[in-house]
Amino acid sequence: MLKTLQPESVKKRTKAQLNVLCDELRRVIYETVMQCGGHLASNLGAVESTVALFYVFDFPSDKIVFDVGHQCYAYKLLSGRLERFSTLRQAGGISGFPKRNESVYDCYDTGHAGTSVSAALGLAKARDLAGEDHFVIAYIGDGSFNNGLVYEALCSLKILNTKILIVLNDNDMSISPTVGGMHEMLAQIKCGGRAETIKLLESFGLQYLGVKNGNDVEEMVEALEEAKTLLHNGSVLLHIATKKGKGYEFSEDHPTNTHGVPPVGSPKDKEYSEVLGETLCELAEANDKITVVSAAMKEALGLSEFFKKYPDRAFDVGICEENASVLCASMATGGLKPYYAIYSTFLQRAFDEIIHDVCAQDTAVTFCIDRAGISGADGETHQGVFDLSYLSLIPNLTIAVPKDTEEFKKMLVFSAGYPHPLAIRYPRAGKVIFENADEPISLGKWEYLYKASLEKQAKLTVIACGERSLIVAMKALKNLEKQGKSFDVVNARFVKPLDMQFLRDLQSEYIVTIEDNVFLGGLGAMLNCEIMRLEKACKVKNFAYRDEFIPQGSVCDLQREYGVDCQEIEAYISEVLV
Amino acid sequence: MLKTLQPESVKKRTKAQLNVLCDELRRVIYETVMQCGGHLASNLGAVESTVALFYVFDFPSDKIVFDVGHQCYAYKLLSGRLERFSTLRQAGGISGFPKRNESVYDCYDTGHAGTSVSAALGLAKARDLAGEDHFVIAYIGDGSFNNGLVYEALCSLKILNTKILIVLNDNDMSISPTVGGMHEMLAQIKCGGRAETIKLLESFGLQYLGVKNGNDVEEMVEALEEAKTLLHNGSVLLHIATKKGKGYEFSEDHPTNTHGVPPVGSPKDKEYSEVLGETLCELAEANDKITVVSAAMKEALGLSEFFKKYPDRAFDVGICEENASVLCASMATGGLKPYYAIYSTFLQRAFDEIIHDVCAQDTAVTFCIDRAGISGADGETHQGVFDLSYLSLIPNLTIAVPKDTEEFKKMLVFSAGYPHPLAIRYPRAGKVIFENADEPISLGKWEYLYKASLEKQAKLTVIACGERSLIVAMKALKNLEKQGKSFDVVNARFVKPLDMQFLRDLQSEYIVTIEDNVFLGGLGAMLNCEIMRLEKACKVKNFAYRDEFIPQGSVCDLQREYGVDCQEIEAYISEVLV
Repeated sequence: MLKTLQPESVKKRTKAQLNVLCDELRRVIYETVMQCGGHLASNLGAVESTVALFYVFDFPSDKIVFDVGHQCYAYKLLSGRLERFSTLRQAGGISGFPKRNESVYDCYDTGHAGTSVSAALGLAKARDLAGEDHFVIAYIGDGSFNNGLVYEALCSLKILNTKILIVLNDNDMSISPTVGGMHEMLAQIKCGGRAETIKLLESFGLQYLGVKNGNDVEEMVEALEEAKTLLHNGSVLLHIATKKGKGYEFSEDHPTNTHGVPPVGSPKDKEYSEVLGETLCELAEANDKITVVSAAMKEALGLSEFFKKYPDRAFDVGICEENASVLCASMATGGLKPYYAIYSTFLQRAFDEIIHDVCAQDTAVTFCIDRAGISGADGETHQGVFDLSYLSLIPNLTIAVPKDTEEFKKMLVFSAGYPHPLAIRYPRAGKVIFENADEPISLGKWEYLYKASLEKQAKLTVIACGERSLIVAMKALKNLEKQGKSFDVVNARFVKPLDMQFLRDLQSEYIVTIEDNVFLGGLGAMLNCEIMRLEKACKVKNFAYRDEFIPQGSVCDLQREYGVDCQEIEAYISEVLV
Repeated sequence: MLKTLQPESVKKRTKAQLNVLCDELRRVIYETVMQCGGHLASNLGAVESTVALFYVFDFPSDKIVFDVGHQCYAYKLLSGRLERFSTLRQAGGISGFPKRNESVYDCYDTGHAGTSVSAALGLAKARDLAGEDHFVIAYIGDGSFNNGLVYEALCSLKILNTKILIVLNDNDMSISPTVGGMHEMLAQIKCGGRAETIKLLESFGLQYLGVKNGNDVEEMVEALEEAKTLLHNGSVLLHIATKKGKGYEFSEDHPTNTHGVPPVGSPKDKEYSEVLGETLCELAEANDKITVVSAAMKEALGLSEFFKKYPDRAFDVGICEENASVLCASMATGGLKPYYAIYSTFLQRAFDEIIHDVCAQDTAVTFCIDRAGISGADGETHQGVFDLSYLSLIPNLTIAVPKDTEEFKKMLVFSAGYPHPLAIRYPRAGKVIFENADEPISLGKWEYLYKASLEKQAKLTVIACGERSLIVAMKALKNLEKQGKSFDVVNARFVKPLDMQFLRDLQSEYIVTIEDNVFLGGLGAMLNCEIMRLEKACKVKNFAYRDEFIPQGSVCDLQREYGVDCQEIEAYISEVLV
């Protein structure tokens, strides 16, 4: 396998040698992803075009922004990161996404879809104003091309009056197969270069150039040379057709399954997404008003079966989180009962629509928020640690956090009869079922997960929300009970509204809160304010993530390092319960 | 003037009578806006098309969604709200925007741009699934058509497989003149119906229909009849050319000035926007890295002069808040010093980009957030009462709140040398200059606005941020000092970071916080947590807006009614300082 690779050496290769290089890179990517997990198919499909870019342009003087970043592995390998590539997605290792603090070759961090064209325009404008003349490139997949942000950037091309190259890597897939209007338009070009589409792109200020086989490195080199020339006249859209997963048969045939790959040997947990899919199918059978909306993530969210079973009531609108949110709000005002399933970090895109459309109109929309809390190996851009905070500030919105997958199911059943906006947030993997608590779901009511004494409240009560936090609490309990120290553990199933009756009745001297979210604006912060308002004499200690962006790493390590440290929690409780 | 108007009567009119009706409606709109303030030019331009819609369609059985809502006045008048129209934008009166709780004719609330097509699609889908067959219409201006959300909705037309009518009211203006790619494309159609653009729309799933003069009610009726027929085959885009401000000479000539009109006779305060424009011009002269980005609001934000003086460094990207945010982040990573000026409520649209692009990369972007706090007559969708909360949860972001326009200027000077993300939030009108405090700006440092005793801290300290809240504090002080009761008043100029040294040193028994923001996640909530963490014995009372959407009304009334009540504050302090 390829052991060393100097960035400068790429340009010295013959075209035949470039082909060899592509094969070598593809092997490194495959082997590494099998070891470390990561985005396989999209990165395999981008190898030739990336090698050609490296051959034709002069990085890092020239700048490239990878949209989302699911296609940057070959670029990382070419730009001096081969030796460290085996640390992909590990704590302290190479990121799965472009990172400015990792290499001078990375000029703009990405992770969420659709930012690349805007980012390239901003970088190009900075170049122009500095009187420099390097090239700026946005490398974007066709899945992202449906995103509204890309369209906004295209609309501003002429306003910004600068020159960029957009490489549109079109493999007919985002994470799920790409859908929607712009995609059909692009498909028409691929099927014979319809003049009107090309002329339309010109009205945006783009010169169009197409490459039939973007996995042919020589063809790519020629096209990029031509693009370089055209860039003297203005911005260029280089539209390349590639095969997602190119070069590995399994991946080519199953690009959705291999979009994101866990490392070989990771345990297969019961996932919350499975429960979501199963339960929504059951609920939809009884209630024909139920609809499901997804933004290009239906498989990962557990909704494939629902889409098959209820095609008339299931909508995948592509990477369009805002549109999905307004669709849900309007479906609800029209009498339907919509569920919007989405990752926590991507829901940030729909923040205004949650306020303005869903909650200001008090609609019966349910958000099913997956990958909430620390998400791990994807790093800063993918941590779902803000949702409790940015959702709890919104009037009319109820926030529920299940303790395990069984409670999640009950919450979904509860949601079906709930006529207001509701957010249910949960991590990917369900690891435990808590057997010693089973209170029926009632709006804003918490339950005891453990009671040290049936007669009275303990001196200390741990109030935690969500499976991960409750696991931490119960571990601490188990360890401390060995020392004869016990306390009550409360499952804060609703973070909004808080269980005010519970808080009023609470007589513990000490409260500990634990959550899988940043501290600011989260469970602990809200609870503190209520404790203060109630003028309770108890002392509260909060465990939540501190006010920093959390990098990649294992969930457990990151929890510990960023503020939810089991040992620290035990030490605190142990000290208090002398 | 028109005194009464039954919805049913519209259909019974002859076409000549429709023309008379248009004139009458125009007069009512003009007179009312002169009295109550409101959106004049856009509403005047929409009169004929709205009358025609009312004539051809059957509301409220058929449904119409007005994008933004700046064009709904004629519709309100036609749908039984003429008699109450003189209460426009007043507390408890007719809203300037569509409101479901106001009339059955309003089926979907709007206020922010770009939601109408998604909303129409959701309503249409609800109709289809219910087996109904009414028409659903999105009425949208060309300014909104640049917004990414509209594009996302267009991309999902075929996926949703339903039928809607989009009326695109094209007056070449949003609030400022419309700019950008889609607009040029539409302009090309108007200039001669370029076949390729129309074919492109077809690839999105739209049949195209154009109206040369959308201010000709008879032409509009004919076109809408045709659209109705075409709707049997699928969705239709009806593109109508209108004149913004149609019918009033002053307005036609100055559509930007008359977009939003204050009621006649309102006092002209010194506005924060003036200070923004002046100061940025001064700063830009000394620093050629400074750029300014606006999302279609440059006049209202005070930036006209900057745009004239520095055309190479000023960018109005249209109603594209997300794009503007990423442009700023990337300009900053490219070495520039960008300022993003925007209304508080619209910045919600860029929430994800503030996290993902601006703050995760720790870029030197400054957000100048106008219309923060209660904004008054525009109601629920325009209150800027969430920003302290949704911004303070984001790592790396500093939040400053000036006490008056002079301090705002100092903060802008401070920002020019500040290398991290910074948000400065302020209301529209500057009403006072506080003369008894003048500490230089230092990151995270508060200042005393009033000190009851120079030797020691008062028994009670009021900590407030922003001009409005400090006015409330100083009024209370003035009134209570008459009773011999005094206290310290602190200008919390930075809401993030809080002045921890100040809080540690604070010895008052009582703290009162006042802010022009919701309580959840705001100044008071954050301060409470720190007081608790520091284990201070003092008692804190928070005044902020409660957890509800705040409707239209006067700023003062709304402050009082929703949680910042001067009398209540005085009563509390008076009771405590026995």
